[in-house]
Amino acid sequence: MYEGVVQDLIDELGRLPGVGPKSAQRIAFHILQSDPVDVRRLASALNEVKEKVRFCAVCGNVSESERCRVCLDARRDPTVICVVEEPKDVVAVERTREFRGRYHVLGGAISPIDGVGPDDLRIRELMTRLADGVVTELILATDPNLEGEATATYLARLLKPMGLRVTRLASGLPVGGDLEYADEVTLGRAFEGRRLLDV
Amino acid sequence: MYEGVVQDLIDELGRLPGVGPKSAQRIAFHILQSDPVDVRRLASALNEVKEKVRFCAVCGNVSESERCRVCLDARRDPTVICVVEEPKDVVAVERTREFRGRYHVLGGAISPIDGVGPDDLRIRELMTRLADGVVTELILATDPNLEGEATATYLARLLKPMGLRVTRLASGLPVGGDLEYADEVTLGRAFEGRRLLDV
Repeated sequence: MYEGVVQDLIDELGRLPGVGPKSAQRIAFHILQSDPVDVRRLASALNEVKEKVRFCAVCGNVSESERCRVCLDARRDPTVICVVEEPKDVVAVERTREFRGRYHVLGGAISPIDGVGPDDLRIRELMTRLADGVVTELILATDPNLEGEATATYLARLLKPMGLRVTRLASGLPVGGDLEYADEVTLGRAFEGRRLLDV
Repeated sequence: MYEGVVQDLIDELGRLPGVGPKSAQRIAFHILQSDPVDVRRLASALNEVKEKVRFCAVCGNVSESERCRVCLDARRDPTVICVVEEPKDVVAVERTREFRGRYHVLGGAISPIDGVGPDDLRIRELMTRLADGVVTELILATDPNLEGEATATYLARLLKPMGLRVTRLASGLPVGGDLEYADEVTLGRAFEGRRLLDV
């Protein structure tokens, strides 16, 4: 419908996740009217990411060097590993400032419907990291959904013979939430996991 | 929060219209996991658009040459001009295959709240096009909202002394819509503009 290069841009933008044909068109027209310097900056940010970013050889997190910042940081506790699905989960946990150990990024969760089995995740790399006996606790922080739970259960069974402390993040009411709006599964978990108030 | 170049990309993506911080993060991680060839293609589509696309010297539509495809097409009726706000409106009208005349893209609509007055639109260029007397009808196809109506009224008054046929697109019920869901203004317009059924 549009002349050559405009249509090319709309097509390319439409391949991005969450960008439908209408948004792609809107973004393309925004680009047409933007300062060329801004557009060049976006284009080079895209290229830079592909040139410079790789995955940490130890934990699988995104990194600009062989090892990521967390793995290189000697102050981080090497005896605890928090296992997450994706690099963005590392950022979410870091934001809490509660965790001072290391990470292991699986690269997804077990999901038979999407054809993702244990062999498609970085589980072998995790087992290698545990071989020297330094790690004493594994926190399974996969998502609290069907795939995440399945992955956590699979890992817990696999790790059982190694005698490690294997924990899972607590499920319960979100802080700042409303009890009446909690779904029944979450509320049920909140009951199960209730704590003694030590006042 | 992220390492340098990833955060740079998230920031750049977040400046696009309709892309919030969460979508920017999602797109950035999609880019990280994409084939480098695909990402280079997106980056060069962005650069190409800025290098090659300009605005037609006659009508203001997007174009890869001095004049756009419609203005260069000798089969298009030079006596009728359809006045629209944006280049994407040209595409919308072309899609109907109902219109065989030429276009004039204003580059927006009069909107005092956004500081857009008549001098910010390509109205002088429109008057220049009308000077030789070839054009006999102007179809005002600005958006059927406050700004579009104001722009149409402004143009109609400005053009009155020239003795042209000045028309406005019909307002009414959208085809395939439901009468009960039409807002009262649209339904009111549909009554006003009712046509005799010639059966």
